[in-house]
This record gives sequence, structure tokens and C-alpha cells, in this order.
Amino acid sequence: MRKFINDPATFVTDYLRGLAAAHPGIIRYDEENRIVVRSDAPVKGKVAVMSGGGSGCEPLHTGFVGPGMLDAACPGQIYTSPVPNQIMAATRAIDGGAGVLQVIKNFSGEVMNFGMAEEILALEDMHVESALVNDDVATKDSAGRRGLGGTLLVEKLAGAAAERSYDVAAVKQIAERVNARVRSFGVGLSSCTPPDRGRPIYDMPADEMDLGIGISGEPGRERVPLRSARDVAGLLVDEVTRDLGPARGARLLVLVNGMGSTPGSELYLLHGEIANALRSRGFNPCRAMVGSYVTALDQFGAALTLLEVDDELIELWDAPVHTAALRWGM
Amino acid sequence: MRKFINDPATFVTDYLRGLAAAHPGIIRYDEENRIVVRSDAPVKGKVAVMSGGGSGCEPLHTGFVGPGMLDAACPGQIYTSPVPNQIMAATRAIDGGAGVLQVIKNFSGEVMNFGMAEEILALEDMHVESALVNDDVATKDSAGRRGLGGTLLVEKLAGAAAERSYDVAAVKQIAERVNARVRSFGVGLSSCTPPDRGRPIYDMPADEMDLGIGISGEPGRERVPLRSARDVAGLLVDEVTRDLGPARGARLLVLVNGMGSTPGSELYLLHGEIANALRSRGFNPCRAMVGSYVTALDQFGAALTLLEVDDELIELWDAPVHTAALRWGM
Repeated sequence: MRKFINDPATFVTDYLRGLAAAHPGIIRYDEENRIVVRSDAPVKGKVAVMSGGGSGCEPLHTGFVGPGMLDAACPGQIYTSPVPNQIMAATRAIDGGAGVLQVIKNFSGEVMNFGMAEEILALEDMHVESALVNDDVATKDSAGRRGLGGTLLVEKLAGAAAERSYDVAAVKQIAERVNARVRSFGVGLSSCTPPDRGRPIYDMPADEMDLGIGISGEPGRERVPLRSARDVAGLLVDEVTRDLGPARGARLLVLVNGMGSTPGSELYLLHGEIANALRSRGFNPCRAMVGSYVTALDQFGAALTLLEVDDELIELWDAPVHTAALRWGM
Repeated sequence: MRKFINDPATFVTDYLRGLAAAHPGIIRYDEENRIVVRSDAPVKGKVAVMSGGGSGCEPLHTGFVGPGMLDAACPGQIYTSPVPNQIMAATRAIDGGAGVLQVIKNFSGEVMNFGMAEEILALEDMHVESALVNDDVATKDSAGRRGLGGTLLVEKLAGAAAERSYDVAAVKQIAERVNARVRSFGVGLSSCTPPDRGRPIYDMPADEMDLGIGISGEPGRERVPLRSARDVAGLLVDEVTRDLGPARGARLLVLVNGMGSTPGSELYLLHGEIANALRSRGFNPCRAMVGSYVTALDQFGAALTLLEVDDELIELWDAPVHTAALRWGM
């Protein structure tokens, strides 16, 4: 297997140890409870923001723990939701008395396990709220839309609001406002290889692309011939804006997100075409973020996430953040 | 070809446009001269620091232009040095009257083209100095060692010194001190696919690793069976420390660098093992940086770079920087 790995069974633990060892100033890894927590948690009087999900999507969520973003993250096994015990331990570890917001991606396992944890925590003296993320325009089945790259934006903006002393209702309201105005669509150029499987989940010819992929190695909804980056950019912009429906002149935060193995040069190339496509359709791409932030192990591919922003959201976006994967202003 | 690309002939230009469009506040792309320049250049009275090299190693160097690091970068075609005209145009664009330091990786084409540019610039009223980077412990041929991940550290630390108003001799002295105390060694798990070739440069089985790779798709010096991440970490640490020879207790800045397609989770996993191996050998890994910073297109693989640091170098490392690929403190 073409990976730097000791043993598939310890992949997630080994990753978490290496992450914590690289960022001792901002996070600690609580190995007993299998959670990543902000070093100085709980922060008294601050609303705490947390999330969790299957591993394999790194740096989501563990790479986003730190001042200005998440107070804790609960990593599950590869592509598997965290269990309620992790979620409860993380919530207790970060509660600073001002309430906790749980950011939950709309996957059935996550919704169920966060819900179970919330029921138990309701018996304790804590104010726990939750916010759902479901930004994927490709899924329209009964379970509803999946949470994709929009999760990163919800976590950054809710985290910044909490850092600025918004109360828990106001932090939740920011998360809900972001989720209401964010949409994503992903394109895969390959499958990915989970460590315990040792080979790609499915085969894919090098000249095809898979439209509407998720972040857990799921195939897309349609397989078509791979086209030029310009055409792919146009397709991504059309898929996302058709659903988001931004007004002419709308200010957009643009996330061009790699799926794990696509190099930065290709993502920036794609970003250039996406920015052109947005401008030619009358939109105003005012903030850009390009890189592999919400991934699917070693998959080749990319996703476009667009968030329609206003002055308050721009200010929260620009606010300082210090995590393993996202850092500025501090 | 499994890439987001319009046309192999415009790959570099399209990438540079997309990069500049994403970071309008910090860089501009001068398309006529094919250089990436800090937006506010020339900065009067500040020593300017620049570099250049073949494209395909992104984010090196174009992703490191901005306050606190490089004033300009000259990207060549894929794996091909920039031409003297680019180097001259960049030097003139950034000279703020306090001198210019050119950071040159030890590849014959780069040394030759920077040298030609320097000869012509010597006739103009500018103080141009240069510093060579040759940190690769795997190459021991007549051309000397290649410049690898150490380049990023030279650029960050010389850039920080320039930002702190060191004069040109002092900035050059920092670059030389860093180069004297930095070493790298890379391991490849695959080849890479240049856009104009459309297929990997060479074949490689999924269960082998290539010891001593470069950053231009060159194969290593020896092909061996792939081992566990723990064993790979031990091998990397031994190769680098044997040559660097740090004293017991030496403080080390650790760069675990991906080659383009290796996911962050594997790099962090490898970092954990490297940090353990360093501590068990009596060294003090005091700063860590984990990610794909000096790459070879879509190659799977990783390299370890170790820099022995002192108080001044740590302070320069921690100093604010704002570039596309490296950002903190601003």
C-alpha cells in the first residue's frame, strides 16, 4: 500500500499523536477519550464550539481546533462517526459556562450519535445547542444534503463569533446563517484507498470525472469524460450558483478545496478559471481560499464551495485564527 | 491525464493567474515579465529577497512571496530554470535601494542563469548579493548537493531578517548560516506526471520506496521495499542527522514536507514518528511544520528537513509572515 503508515488499525491514533506533537501550543490530544481539545480549554465565559466526524477528511475537523475556531474535535474511525462517549467527553472538556455549540454534518451516523450525546448531556447543567451543515447540492435523497466544504466555513465563522463574545444563541444564529447561504459541489478524478482496505474503493479511468462526490469515498451521481479546467470550473460554478441563487453583484467567499492528492498548482489553476466564471456571471468573488481542507484521504479531485457574505461574515472570516491547518492574524 | 488543466502549454501561466487572483492583497503577477512580485514592491529602504526555479515544486517559490518572506519569485517552465530576463526584471522591480539578496538552489541551470543575470545587473546601480542552498544529503556528485526543503527555511528566515531592517550583508549572513545548519532527505512512493508528458516519468510498484529523491521528478539513488512509517522515520532521521551532526540536546526545526499528493494525515503520522525518533536520540524538536511546501507535482512521498536553530533563528522563524502558502502573525 503506497502510504506512510504503521498499521491500518492504529492509523487514526498515530495521526492524532503526530498532529498534537506538531502543535503543542494550541491543542492537546486526550488519548483516553480520543478527542482533540484546545490547550487552554475550557475558556471561562466563552461559548465553546465543537465538531466531529469520520477520519479520512483531514484536516477537517482536528486541524481546525484552536483559538478563533473549534474548542474540540471528535475524530471517528476512517469514514465512521464518532461515538456518543467522545462527544460527551469533548463537550464537558470545553464548557466554560457560556454554552456549547455542536456543529454537525448531515450524515445519518453523525446526526444520530450527536443526538444521543445531547440527550444525555441535557441531564447535566450545560447549555448545549447544535447547528446542522448540509451544503452539498449533489445529494437530493431522503436523508437530505450532505455536509461538505461548508462545514469549514461554519466552523470558522461560528468560532470567530464565539471568540468575540457572542452569546450561544448568537453563535448558533451565525452558524445557521452561514449554512443557509453556503453550497458545495465536488468532482472526483479518482477513488481513494482506506488504510484497512489497501486498494481503491472503485476503479476509475484517468480520462473520466465523477460528478457530485462526497468526502467519504462515495462515488458521484454521474460519470462523464474529463474536460478542460475551464469547463470544469464553469460546471462547478453553474451547479453551485443555480442552487444558491446569489443576486447579481453578490459578494462571494470562494473555497476551492482539494480532495487530498490533487496538487496546489492545479487547485490554483482551477481557482483562476472559477474566479473568471464568477465575474463573467456578474458575481463578486471577494475572498478566496485554495487548498486541501476537507478531503477524502488520497483522492484526486476538487470541490467548489461558495458562501454569500455580508459585512459581518467578512469581518468574522478575517478575524484571527490559530489552528494546525488555518492560521492568520496570530 | 488525471489533472485539472486546460493545455500543457499554458499550465504555468494559468496557475500563476489563479494564484494572483486568490491573493490580490499581497502579490501581483507581472505577466509580461513572468514574475510574481509583492504588491507593495519596491519597499523603500528594505533589503529585498527573491528566488526562482522550475515550476512544478509549488508552492515553492511563488507561494512564498509576501510580507516577511520573498519580494519576488521567478517561475520557470516545469522543472526548468527561469531565464536571466525574468531574474533581471524581478531584481529591478523589488530593489528598494537597500540591496537585493537572490536565494539560489544548487541546480546547474539556476546557478548559471542567476549568474548571467547578476553579471548584467552589476553594470547597474544596485547592490545584488546571492546565497546558495544545497541541503540535500542524498546527492554527492560533482555538481554538489541539490537545494530542497532547506530553501523554504532560508527564504523565511532571510525574509524575516530583511523585514526587521537587517542590512544586506546581515541578511546574506542569515541565509548562509541557515544553509550551513540545514539538511534534507526525501523518499518517493511514486513518480510524477508532468503536464506536457501526460504519464509518469517512470514506473514504480506500490510496495517500494525510492530513497534520495529530488524535487524535479528525478528518481532516487536506491529502490527498496516500503517499510512502516516508524521505520521510514528512523531512516530519514538517521540520514539527516548523520550529515548535520547536531550536538546532543540541539534544538531542531522539523519540516515534514509532502511531495504533492501525499495527504496531510500521512505527513502528520510520519511527523509523530520523526519527533519520537529525534527525542529518543537526544535532540530537541522545538518547532514543527508539516505539509506540502516543496513538491514535485503529483508525486507521493515525503522529505525530512532539519535545521539546527538558535535564539535568533527561532525569533526570525516566529516573526509574522503573509504569503499564499505560509501565514501567521498577520
